[in-house]
Amino acid sequence: TDDRYPSRFDTRAHVSNRHDPVVYGSADDGPLSASDLRFYDDNGYLSFDALLQPDELQSALDELQRLRNDEEIKDSDEAVIEPGSRELRSIFAVHRHNAVLRRLCAHPRLAAIARQLLGGEVYIHQSRINYKGGFRGKEFYWHSDFETWHVEDGIPAMRMVSCSISLTPNTPNNGPLMIMPGSHHRYVACVGATPENHYKASLKQQDVGVPDDASLSALAEQCGIIAPTGPVGAVTFFECNVMHGSNSNITPAPRSNLFIVYNSVDNTPVEPFCGLAPRPNFIAERVDFSPLGRA
Amino acid sequence: TDDRYPSRFDTRAHVSNRHDPVVYGSADDGPLSASDLRFYDDNGYLSFDALLQPDELQSALDELQRLRNDEEIKDSDEAVIEPGSRELRSIFAVHRHNAVLRRLCAHPRLAAIARQLLGGEVYIHQSRINYKGGFRGKEFYWHSDFETWHVEDGIPAMRMVSCSISLTPNTPNNGPLMIMPGSHHRYVACVGATPENHYKASLKQQDVGVPDDASLSALAEQCGIIAPTGPVGAVTFFECNVMHGSNSNITPAPRSNLFIVYNSVDNTPVEPFCGLAPRPNFIAERVDFSPLGRA
Repeated sequence: TDDRYPSRFDTRAHVSNRHDPVVYGSADDGPLSASDLRFYDDNGYLSFDALLQPDELQSALDELQRLRNDEEIKDSDEAVIEPGSRELRSIFAVHRHNAVLRRLCAHPRLAAIARQLLGGEVYIHQSRINYKGGFRGKEFYWHSDFETWHVEDGIPAMRMVSCSISLTPNTPNNGPLMIMPGSHHRYVACVGATPENHYKASLKQQDVGVPDDASLSALAEQCGIIAPTGPVGAVTFFECNVMHGSNSNITPAPRSNLFIVYNSVDNTPVEPFCGLAPRPNFIAERVDFSPLGRA
Repeated sequence: TDDRYPSRFDTRAHVSNRHDPVVYGSADDGPLSASDLRFYDDNGYLSFDALLQPDELQSALDELQRLRNDEEIKDSDEAVIEPGSRELRSIFAVHRHNAVLRRLCAHPRLAAIARQLLGGEVYIHQSRINYKGGFRGKEFYWHSDFETWHVEDGIPAMRMVSCSISLTPNTPNNGPLMIMPGSHHRYVACVGATPENHYKASLKQQDVGVPDDASLSALAEQCGIIAPTGPVGAVTFFECNVMHGSNSNITPAPRSNLFIVYNSVDNTPVEPFCGLAPRPNFIAERVDFSPLGRA
């Protein structure tokens, strides 16, 4: 397959244009309105304060609390522990191993939006919980998800959408997701070759596939930076190539989110564009592309 | 002198009440109104978007830019360099070594407010610039300034006020100062004895004199957390015992502030309450208590 988004090959970073549509469906497909779709097309994200109700989430929240204190989970491949402590930072593939979370990840209201944005059937490429604890919650540096998914997982095209569900209130002060609106129209090719088994280090702290300062400054200048906040159950959909990240969290209030990445069944992975072996299946689905059921 | 605010002696943290007034002057003294004073008394801070005009600040801003690139300054005792890089994080005693910054630190509009809050003549206990750079700007963890100034500098009473001047725009996203409003009414005694020459390490990363999680959770629960933001020249006065800190800054926009700490001439330091030698004069004035001039 032709590499339309080369990255990590050159010794200099560069910013180029996106070659793919942003919205693949139309307002007729529902549930999003034409103005929702236009907003997403322009800005690369869409936020809802009350798409899910707290009671719809409660069983998932209980499950998360349990997972967080489960030492066996912390020792599993799917778990990422904070550098320097035994605090859980992330768990991957929660839709695979847990019936309660599988139901939430495949929630008909979320799947319907993903299908509309991506123009057809979708499956889950990745799911994960990010626990950003209070007091010592670490930042997530700026990145385009697509850059990694393309280079390391072999996803050919920008036809994916992430859905972030607030599991705790996201406030301006507890390190909320920050997005550069409109940055998904540009592609920032990064510097530095991908090392083998890069994912093991990169899930804790990213070193390769990191946008350079000059590109980030230019994007921030053009796009600005917004930080959607909201109560438990607030949902933000964001485009796979939108530049995002989050600051640390010294407030006592944890900021935990569930991320679900939907991919179009017409955009399944090929061989990774970095030429290395693909990442494990719990980070990037390569086996089961069966479409999510319709409600 | 009696230690009315013991800290770092016990093996358990505890929270007690403040023994000192918050506002020492009255509205008749001006320039703050009775309602300003009431707000400060209740909340422990007071913010002004336009107390200083950008053109009043321009010469100071130029000076700061120069200092930031001066390798000799970076090697001086007064400078604190970011762990892991040669980036300047702080410079102390800028009112001592630099005519332009001395003028700003002693600005009649700022000094008048300090005199009113502290009820009489004031001098500068400490001044510093904090450069929180873009991209990799580090957090400042929660602390009460007074706890350190009392324990390590021998300041007897809570009769000091800090003034923070925005040298770059402070936005919700670039790691602005966060304050727990009203927390200055309580005193959080910390755990752990002060090591000798503690200041050398503590200016880079605080380890002793750090409030414990339970006390911070209780304070945040009672007080909430606010983050005053504003353009270049915005000014926040905050009480010496108010709990404050700031998150990291991954945005490209640096967040740099000039801090000036005013102390009442009736509250000059005695021997440090930790029993060790006092910190150097460039961090905590012990020699020159001459009051700031009146305009």
